[in-house]
Amino acid sequence: MGRDRQERVARAALSRLAEPGDVALYEAVVRHGAAQVLDAVLGDDAAGSADVRLPARRLAGYRARLPGAGLARVLDEAHRCGARLVCPGDAEWPTQVDQLGGVTSARGAPLVPPLCLWVRGAGDARLALVRSVAVIGARAATAYGEHVAGELGADLADRGWTVVSGAAYGVDAAAHRGALSVAGTTVAVLACGPDVVYPRSHDSLLGRVAEEGLIVSELAPGTSVSRLRLLQRNRLVAALTRGTVVVEAAVRSGTATTAGYAAGLGRPVMAVPGPVTSATSVGCHELVRSGRAVLVTDASDVVDAVGRVGEDAEPPRRGEERPEDALSGIELRALDALPVRRPAGIAALARTAGLDLASLRSALGALVAAGLAESESGGYRLSAAMRNRPRRA
Amino acid sequence: MGRDRQERVARAALSRLAEPGDVALYEAVVRHGAAQVLDAVLGDDAAGSADVRLPARRLAGYRARLPGAGLARVLDEAHRCGARLVCPGDAEWPTQVDQLGGVTSARGAPLVPPLCLWVRGAGDARLALVRSVAVIGARAATAYGEHVAGELGADLADRGWTVVSGAAYGVDAAAHRGALSVAGTTVAVLACGPDVVYPRSHDSLLGRVAEEGLIVSELAPGTSVSRLRLLQRNRLVAALTRGTVVVEAAVRSGTATTAGYAAGLGRPVMAVPGPVTSATSVGCHELVRSGRAVLVTDASDVVDAVGRVGEDAEPPRRGEERPEDALSGIELRALDALPVRRPAGIAALARTAGLDLASLRSALGALVAAGLAESESGGYRLSAAMRNRPRRA
Repeated sequence: MGRDRQERVARAALSRLAEPGDVALYEAVVRHGAAQVLDAVLGDDAAGSADVRLPARRLAGYRARLPGAGLARVLDEAHRCGARLVCPGDAEWPTQVDQLGGVTSARGAPLVPPLCLWVRGAGDARLALVRSVAVIGARAATAYGEHVAGELGADLADRGWTVVSGAAYGVDAAAHRGALSVAGTTVAVLACGPDVVYPRSHDSLLGRVAEEGLIVSELAPGTSVSRLRLLQRNRLVAALTRGTVVVEAAVRSGTATTAGYAAGLGRPVMAVPGPVTSATSVGCHELVRSGRAVLVTDASDVVDAVGRVGEDAEPPRRGEERPEDALSGIELRALDALPVRRPAGIAALARTAGLDLASLRSALGALVAAGLAESESGGYRLSAAMRNRPRRA
Repeated sequence: MGRDRQERVARAALSRLAEPGDVALYEAVVRHGAAQVLDAVLGDDAAGSADVRLPARRLAGYRARLPGAGLARVLDEAHRCGARLVCPGDAEWPTQVDQLGGVTSARGAPLVPPLCLWVRGAGDARLALVRSVAVIGARAATAYGEHVAGELGADLADRGWTVVSGAAYGVDAAAHRGALSVAGTTVAVLACGPDVVYPRSHDSLLGRVAEEGLIVSELAPGTSVSRLRLLQRNRLVAALTRGTVVVEAAVRSGTATTAGYAAGLGRPVMAVPGPVTSATSVGCHELVRSGRAVLVTDASDVVDAVGRVGEDAEPPRRGEERPEDALSGIELRALDALPVRRPAGIAALARTAGLDLASLRSALGALVAAGLAESESGGYRLSAAMRNRPRRA
């Protein structure tokens, strides 16, 4: 087979033997090519694989998995489950994940891009992810968290943004479902093979995502979930998107690590506030308090944070303008002095307001013109519109 | 009567004739003394009051209020309602309000300190306010807002902080009540005379505040509430306290002006988040989003923001440490590979984990020592403690 095909098959095989985020392996592949690294793993020293200086223990680890790995059938299996292999250099490769090479985790461990991606779904992964936002959060979400995640997913998708999440219980599932509810694009990034249903009960959700959006994983078909894979998956979620929104999170959580990866990549991290009485909002509030996330309340805020300046930016939110917001101090004093029902004469108003007659007359004129006061039988009182409105402090 | 007594009586009289925040009047008083300014208002040109160059219209305004002002009885009236006059230079004067001279409102209008304060209650105003926090917010508060304000009021008072608010419906009242509930100190700053009950239904609340805390106002006894006075009261709340906490606020509100005054004075502004689905939390979220307030979730956060560094600062919040938080990558892989029930042998574990035998043995030793794994009949599995704990992403 051709050199390119050989490389692709080797990447596929290595994605079955190694754990995601394997720095030594990634560096060896960059230096020697995947085919030569695979040869070294398989013990085939014919093609100069001795040059591939992987630590002996690491090699022994890959080899421990060889029995039953069924490397020869990896691509066939993928084909059977409808997954395709996407490699760096392919038109479909989402190049933003390459930024993972060059950043470190919050603990200082170097991060690396995936060797390859397994993709299920009709769309083009690169195009789907070029304008995408991660919406993630607690699996033990409250009804509030699921509601907000669903609204965010729907509103972001409605604005043409792809909603990326991890297909977990709680916030993740709600975000996917929100996007699906408006026929938007959503991408599930998995911590297992693209064909593995985890959690089990998300069978139909994952089916819908694969049908109407994309399922993406760096793990070969058939690979099961593990803690390490969940953590490494989080780096992919952060790297594939333009920013990460956290909807409900406990203080220490996988969600916080994803936010950390996003921050390390220079992508905006956003957090949705919630009741301070809710334990599942503590992590969000802590992210904002510590300056690691900006507070967002809806899709507008999110687009504001991740959108290119001038392109997607939203105008600042403003409350309803009230006529009296534009009043001068003297006009405000005259307004305060006006009776609600029985009109008061100029002299009485001057006493109440503490204003001279000329200032008072001019202020009353302005108030009548603004529809705040009305003149009746020689006196003045609040207009009907003002009478029927509650005061505010 | 003596010069000092004359000055005090004149300030009291002027606090009845003028509106609070009257810059021209305040500057005239600073330049000429209150007695001479009052003479000018009264039209007594004998004592060089012609030097007091107040704008003619302003003078006419004060004079419009002379009929029925009962200036001669102001101090008697105050005495009758249990209020005392506190003037700059008095031991009880809270000197932090003097910082109002030299700042401007958000609209650029210059602010001025009060001419005097009317105080009801047994405590010393200066001492009560030296370590104080304002807790303010929406009158149309939700049950959530009132709950949070009550908790904040109680917890701050419990830590020895005086809780200052405006005795309005909603957040204000809840904050006062919270402080009262733990026999703490609370101060109500009013937009009317210290003897006026506003709102009417807060009769008993104001009575309790006067009995166990303090009621403070710059308005003479008998003066009613007005919009202008509410706005000017807000500058006092901000100036009397070390910081202002906003609990629930709509986008445009008096609460936001108080926060603006506090910011202008260089005092910390804090906002409590709430559900993004709640209209009464929109103002709080906007304050945080725009960088005008820091997010606070409880009294610890508030003390953290207003307390002197090293004195009141709180340690950062941390989640529960879990044993596996300290694991190396290899140990984590070994942990992920461990079966829940039937112990697995070393060879099978090496295959699942993709680890060489030496690394695996050393990792398993560490896991057993950490109480995460247990060895049984030659194999390894998760410890009982781990088996009974849910996984997390």
